[in-house]
Amino acid sequence: MKDLSAYSELEIIFHQFFTLKGIESFLHWDMSVNMPTGGAAARSEQLAILEEKIHSVVTSEQVGELLNESEISPPSNPWDRANLKEMRRYWKHAIALDSKLVKALSKSSSACQMVWRKACQNNDFGLVKDAFSELLILVREKAVTKGTYFGNSPYEALMGEFEPGATIKVVDKIFCELSNFLPELTEKVLFKQSVGKAPEIPIGPFDEKAQRKLALSMMERVGFDFEHGRLDKSLHPFCGGVSDDVRITTRYKQNDFLSGLMGVLHETGHAMYERGLPEEWRLQPVGQARGMAIHESQSLLIEMQVCRSIEFLSFAVPMMKTAFDSNGSAWTPNNFYRLQNKVSKSLIRVEADEVTYPLHVILRYQIEKALISGEMEGEELPTVWNEKMNNLLGVEPKNDREGCLQDIHWFNGAFGYFPTYTMGALAAAQIFQAACTAETVIKPKLSQGCFVPLMKWLRENIHSKGSFASTNEILTEASGSPIETKAFKLHLQQQYLE
Amino acid sequence: MKDLSAYSELEIIFHQFFTLKGIESFLHWDMSVNMPTGGAAARSEQLAILEEKIHSVVTSEQVGELLNESEISPPSNPWDRANLKEMRRYWKHAIALDSKLVKALSKSSSACQMVWRKACQNNDFGLVKDAFSELLILVREKAVTKGTYFGNSPYEALMGEFEPGATIKVVDKIFCELSNFLPELTEKVLFKQSVGKAPEIPIGPFDEKAQRKLALSMMERVGFDFEHGRLDKSLHPFCGGVSDDVRITTRYKQNDFLSGLMGVLHETGHAMYERGLPEEWRLQPVGQARGMAIHESQSLLIEMQVCRSIEFLSFAVPMMKTAFDSNGSAWTPNNFYRLQNKVSKSLIRVEADEVTYPLHVILRYQIEKALISGEMEGEELPTVWNEKMNNLLGVEPKNDREGCLQDIHWFNGAFGYFPTYTMGALAAAQIFQAACTAETVIKPKLSQGCFVPLMKWLRENIHSKGSFASTNEILTEASGSPIETKAFKLHLQQQYLE
Repeated sequence: MKDLSAYSELEIIFHQFFTLKGIESFLHWDMSVNMPTGGAAARSEQLAILEEKIHSVVTSEQVGELLNESEISPPSNPWDRANLKEMRRYWKHAIALDSKLVKALSKSSSACQMVWRKACQNNDFGLVKDAFSELLILVREKAVTKGTYFGNSPYEALMGEFEPGATIKVVDKIFCELSNFLPELTEKVLFKQSVGKAPEIPIGPFDEKAQRKLALSMMERVGFDFEHGRLDKSLHPFCGGVSDDVRITTRYKQNDFLSGLMGVLHETGHAMYERGLPEEWRLQPVGQARGMAIHESQSLLIEMQVCRSIEFLSFAVPMMKTAFDSNGSAWTPNNFYRLQNKVSKSLIRVEADEVTYPLHVILRYQIEKALISGEMEGEELPTVWNEKMNNLLGVEPKNDREGCLQDIHWFNGAFGYFPTYTMGALAAAQIFQAACTAETVIKPKLSQGCFVPLMKWLRENIHSKGSFASTNEILTEASGSPIETKAFKLHLQQQYLE
Repeated sequence: MKDLSAYSELEIIFHQFFTLKGIESFLHWDMSVNMPTGGAAARSEQLAILEEKIHSVVTSEQVGELLNESEISPPSNPWDRANLKEMRRYWKHAIALDSKLVKALSKSSSACQMVWRKACQNNDFGLVKDAFSELLILVREKAVTKGTYFGNSPYEALMGEFEPGATIKVVDKIFCELSNFLPELTEKVLFKQSVGKAPEIPIGPFDEKAQRKLALSMMERVGFDFEHGRLDKSLHPFCGGVSDDVRITTRYKQNDFLSGLMGVLHETGHAMYERGLPEEWRLQPVGQARGMAIHESQSLLIEMQVCRSIEFLSFAVPMMKTAFDSNGSAWTPNNFYRLQNKVSKSLIRVEADEVTYPLHVILRYQIEKALISGEMEGEELPTVWNEKMNNLLGVEPKNDREGCLQDIHWFNGAFGYFPTYTMGALAAAQIFQAACTAETVIKPKLSQGCFVPLMKWLRENIHSKGSFASTNEILTEASGSPIETKAFKLHLQQQYLE
């Protein structure tokens, strides 16, 4: 009785914690979607004070005592037990840092993010250099403090915020396998493409309103619930809000509607996951997304596994044609397939093809490890970035906007995130292959533009698991193995060489 | 030294308080502008928990002690002293209610507001009846508790939340004077209008994009700072956000662009006040808006005193004509003047003319007093509303949407607010007359579309005062007398009979 009551008290505390987290998510969304630049200082203050409040909710002495008390005789329901385990994990992450550092980090990352916007507009890393260096000092302090507390390396401590349990050893192994596999594959694909028919680019301009309308109808196909979410514009596409009010964003390019549309489909994958998390555990730790690897697998599954397949394009290209009232030889599924799966050594990660994308991630992984360890300073970023880009991909940015300024992550204080993109790509391939094997109706239905059987399977096998089990446990149960490169390699070979 | 430190601690606490209040304001703004209906439950939970946190910031035992300690030897700077006085006032308002009631009120008003939206769409008070009755019970509890604590009547306690120091005695006196004056004036104006030239209505439809563009350029003229604010759409126009990021909204009618535009100009007046509050006191009590009477005076000054004058219309009508690429006999300043100043006994408060508007307020004042005292129940609202509408204005709503559902206030828990509209109208007339007398350049400049001298005067004499003095002190200093009906009566006679 006494223990149950300690656990119930924890449930109330974490309910508060995730509710306040939800508010934070809206403030971030608003900052990217609506906020005028002059609102930055006020917003930064709001985020800092809110984060302090959030932090204080789980770091009171009382929470530690309640956890100890609950763990002595844990609740009998397995979900409650998993919830308690997650509570301990959140508490450990929160308690590792003092509130002064948390507040300073929040302020510094808000400030840096705003300056980054200006630096992007002016195409000049120099503008954000100081704000970035200041932020980096705080992030390093966080990494060292957490690493010491968790008994792992500073960089692993940062990865753990996005992907619980991620280790340098596993990430190194995966990246090593991919580094051995991808260069040869890339050359093969480039050769195949050079002798094959070149894709024809559909000619714009594509009216933004029509782009948005098409995006909305595609979201609807995938199953996005507009009663519980919306689509807006921002500089960098993302998925924010809360499970019952998911806010996704994209950007529209006048002459390349596919870029914005693929952004939407990607974020819709994230949104479907958020929305499909177990409803009865909404504001409890066990009801949250497992980690960014699974999160990213859900967006990449929709974008890469489904929406770039010839089956889906056979259905979708006629819709696109109608949307823009277009015509001509470019508007065939085969041409769009070639277009959508064109491999090239390019500069921008979010526009990179699936084959070279992991190389973009490996570049960032190497740099952020060096930034955190202190081997590299913030001001060196443009130089190192351009060098590595040349080594890994054989291309060099002409300016900072197509170089080290292209991603928001670091300028917002998020280090250790990038590896999860590639872990997500691997998991997406594993999961999609497992789903199609388990339910043979999935693929034929997708070629008719119907996502229902796929979503049903994903809801049951991935989304509804929340944080009940670990990433590898969820993957193993769903696909038969923990995270590995086999399914991804197979997918690349089929998609790009056959 | 010791006292100074107690006061400094209070400054930190109130800085937190107003920062969290700013977050709350954005959540409300988002709820009206962006939120999909399915997000209501999550938002309501967020607001409830945030309000609890806000409440707890100022209601800790420590705050009471710090106030006592600071008051023993108050700070020497008059602004600090005024700040301390306001701190005490906020603290009293906060301490009067226990946090359970605060949370219940927040949840109930969020819930009721959402149901009200549906009731409006379906034109059926019945849908919101239960939610409204539930909310009313909580509001009454608040009113009685606060009234007992402050030693005034429950209804006065509610008015005090919006207009500190407002008494039933003063409001009754003002409303009595207006009740004696307005009916005769209305008849005179109606007679004058019936024998004069009838205004010609410009023919729509007016493209929404063009309406918005015109609105934005008008906002710019008034002095709205787009680096620190934005314009959006909502069901009911309002001004939200914070001083450094003011969010105003309006609605666009396809065949009546003036309605949306006047909404924008009105809210721009509010926005200018918020933005002009003393910057060095941003997140302190003394830096806040004095009360809703002054707030409303600033919106009505722009909308009623300036933008409906023949001088301003002479400048603005050609701009409007260009905006819609329109032509014809309707598009003259004189016709627009007749149109904008047309008096009629109508149903919708926000569209009512200046002469009959106070009657709409008197109706609501009578009803809300009865609802709070318990003389009237929530379910009686449609019947009583329609009866009173008939008595006071001689018109009767055909349905709830044009009747008791038209205003959001009560359905959002805001009782005691309506009188401030008319107090604001009186103050607007007083202030504008004082400004034009003090600076003779103001009127000629306005007729050229230049708001600079007017805004300069308002900044110095009204906005920058924040909550340094009481409403009547600010008014007396600026216009020579506390709130009174003389200037307003004079304005109406000049505007409508000359």
